[in-house]
Amino acid sequence: MTVDEKHMMRAIELAKLGEGMTRPNPPVGAVLVLEDYIVAEGWHHKAGEDHAERDCLGKLPPIATSLKNATLYVTLEPCSTHGRTPPCTDLILEKGIGRVVVSVVDLNPAHAGRGLEILKEAGVEVVSGVCEAEGRELIAPFEKFITTGMPYVTLKLASTLDGKIADRNGDSKWITGAEARERVQEMRLRADAVMVGAGTVRADDPSLLPRPSNGRKPWRIVVGKNIPAGSKVLTDEDAEQTLVREGSLSVILKELAEKHDVMHVLCEGGGQLAAGLIEVGLVDEFAFFIAPKLMGADGLPNFGKTGGLISDVKNLKFQSLEQVGNDILIKAKQEK
Amino acid sequence: MTVDEKHMMRAIELAKLGEGMTRPNPPVGAVLVLEDYIVAEGWHHKAGEDHAERDCLGKLPPIATSLKNATLYVTLEPCSTHGRTPPCTDLILEKGIGRVVVSVVDLNPAHAGRGLEILKEAGVEVVSGVCEAEGRELIAPFEKFITTGMPYVTLKLASTLDGKIADRNGDSKWITGAEARERVQEMRLRADAVMVGAGTVRADDPSLLPRPSNGRKPWRIVVGKNIPAGSKVLTDEDAEQTLVREGSLSVILKELAEKHDVMHVLCEGGGQLAAGLIEVGLVDEFAFFIAPKLMGADGLPNFGKTGGLISDVKNLKFQSLEQVGNDILIKAKQEK
Repeated sequence: MTVDEKHMMRAIELAKLGEGMTRPNPPVGAVLVLEDYIVAEGWHHKAGEDHAERDCLGKLPPIATSLKNATLYVTLEPCSTHGRTPPCTDLILEKGIGRVVVSVVDLNPAHAGRGLEILKEAGVEVVSGVCEAEGRELIAPFEKFITTGMPYVTLKLASTLDGKIADRNGDSKWITGAEARERVQEMRLRADAVMVGAGTVRADDPSLLPRPSNGRKPWRIVVGKNIPAGSKVLTDEDAEQTLVREGSLSVILKELAEKHDVMHVLCEGGGQLAAGLIEVGLVDEFAFFIAPKLMGADGLPNFGKTGGLISDVKNLKFQSLEQVGNDILIKAKQEK
Repeated sequence: MTVDEKHMMRAIELAKLGEGMTRPNPPVGAVLVLEDYIVAEGWHHKAGEDHAERDCLGKLPPIATSLKNATLYVTLEPCSTHGRTPPCTDLILEKGIGRVVVSVVDLNPAHAGRGLEILKEAGVEVVSGVCEAEGRELIAPFEKFITTGMPYVTLKLASTLDGKIADRNGDSKWITGAEARERVQEMRLRADAVMVGAGTVRADDPSLLPRPSNGRKPWRIVVGKNIPAGSKVLTDEDAEQTLVREGSLSVILKELAEKHDVMHVLCEGGGQLAAGLIEVGLVDEFAFFIAPKLMGADGLPNFGKTGGLISDVKNLKFQSLEQVGNDILIKAKQEK
């Protein structure tokens, strides 16, 4: 790992602190380095607040030396246009920073490369494409959202080794262990909306809110009908953040993106809704938690689709593999 | 890793070359080291043939120096009794080897430590317990066999992410990819018997023999009835190595150990037989191959048990996790 990569990975780590808070902006992180020493760190906390560059440079301690020899690492190309805040390129030039390293260039073709060009013309040394895969992964929901007008969908399914998400009575407490459940809470914090099928609400009456809360409430989407009027999602103090919808899944997702700036949906099942999303290729990323358990054929399936011929098989591709407590987390994508 | 551990791991690697060939003996490996240089390697190839120590020392090149400064690494304590071959302790003393390092001491309480004692009394420096966990793992089937009179059972199940081992017509070609199927061939080579349910024979007509063969034929056990008279296992040139049995699984396993010296059974399903073995706690080790696929609820389950209440759940413990080609191999044990 080069020095540039090391500092960029830190900037990406910082960016993640804003995940789920920045919609409709992407999460961005920044690090200012002088003689291989990090002198300031920042990230984009929330739409309408400072961009990562301004957040980082605002934390700069009062120092006598010039920033001619300093390098600013930013996960995304600095903006060059006036939005809700002034252009970050202006700020960088004003501070006299000598070198700027970027992971991903602006995704908007109208702006791509423009910020870097302005900096170069002003004599700043510019490097881009450092840790680009990781930088791009970080903004995958944002990229999907701005390029397609649809939210990025992560489908989380927690099952036994024989693919059961609950027993035949719908009891799913607890298939996976505490560490896996905690990981799901982190996933909720990073999502703009948490989606489940009506059957899950009937069986579990979940709040779908991250615990502990970070103050931000994701949208809660229930797909289907006949959910009890007393359900938590309909009656708790955040009930106005709950939408109950029927019909085409792609129409529902499009509504979330268009009306509510939802970039990232976490779908937590059940098996019927999962199968519906997979069938029409709407899942961008799968997170399978697998518990070291065997339930038996009458449990509820993680993939609630009838059929079951070799020719019907949906092919995925494993991305990563991790032990989480006593369970396993498998990340995968659907083969296109 | 210490120098002793490094050489012992090599001896364990060598021992594995004999796995599946040595019954009713355990696999054993040996390495002779002089000034940190391996001068000879050996392993127990087959019952009735040389023990690992003799195989190793027989390969010693003609050298002028004495073996006073040499170390012999053996995965299991050298024998001190006359069996089909003379005692290895005699050979070690005769060669004048100065130091002997052992992973596991003899499991038979009547012999345990006796070989090491003889060597010590003759002035040989003796160390035992090096890489003991790995050395013990290597002889787990042998240990189960000699201490309980029952074979060690590895249950292999290859399924989709929703736990299906075949489609609703029994078609299982191919759930997993080429690398996973190759790994199963290696597992067959290491087993003394390969066991399947009658349903698997009816659906797939498998030969159950390792491909490519190493010349050794594992026993083939079919559990159940109504298998077609023309099935490969009943009609090919190794048909006399096939047993068809019904009734209690523990009685069948006991017969294999008692009458045929079978120490290690590889059960390859199907889901009914798997459930039967798990139900009575007869599985020593699970190997779940999981393909990045989703089949649908009508496929055949890897755990073919009805029921499916939280209270019925069988709890396992994951041992290891590995990507094999495009699939995942999860090893597990049943919680006792």
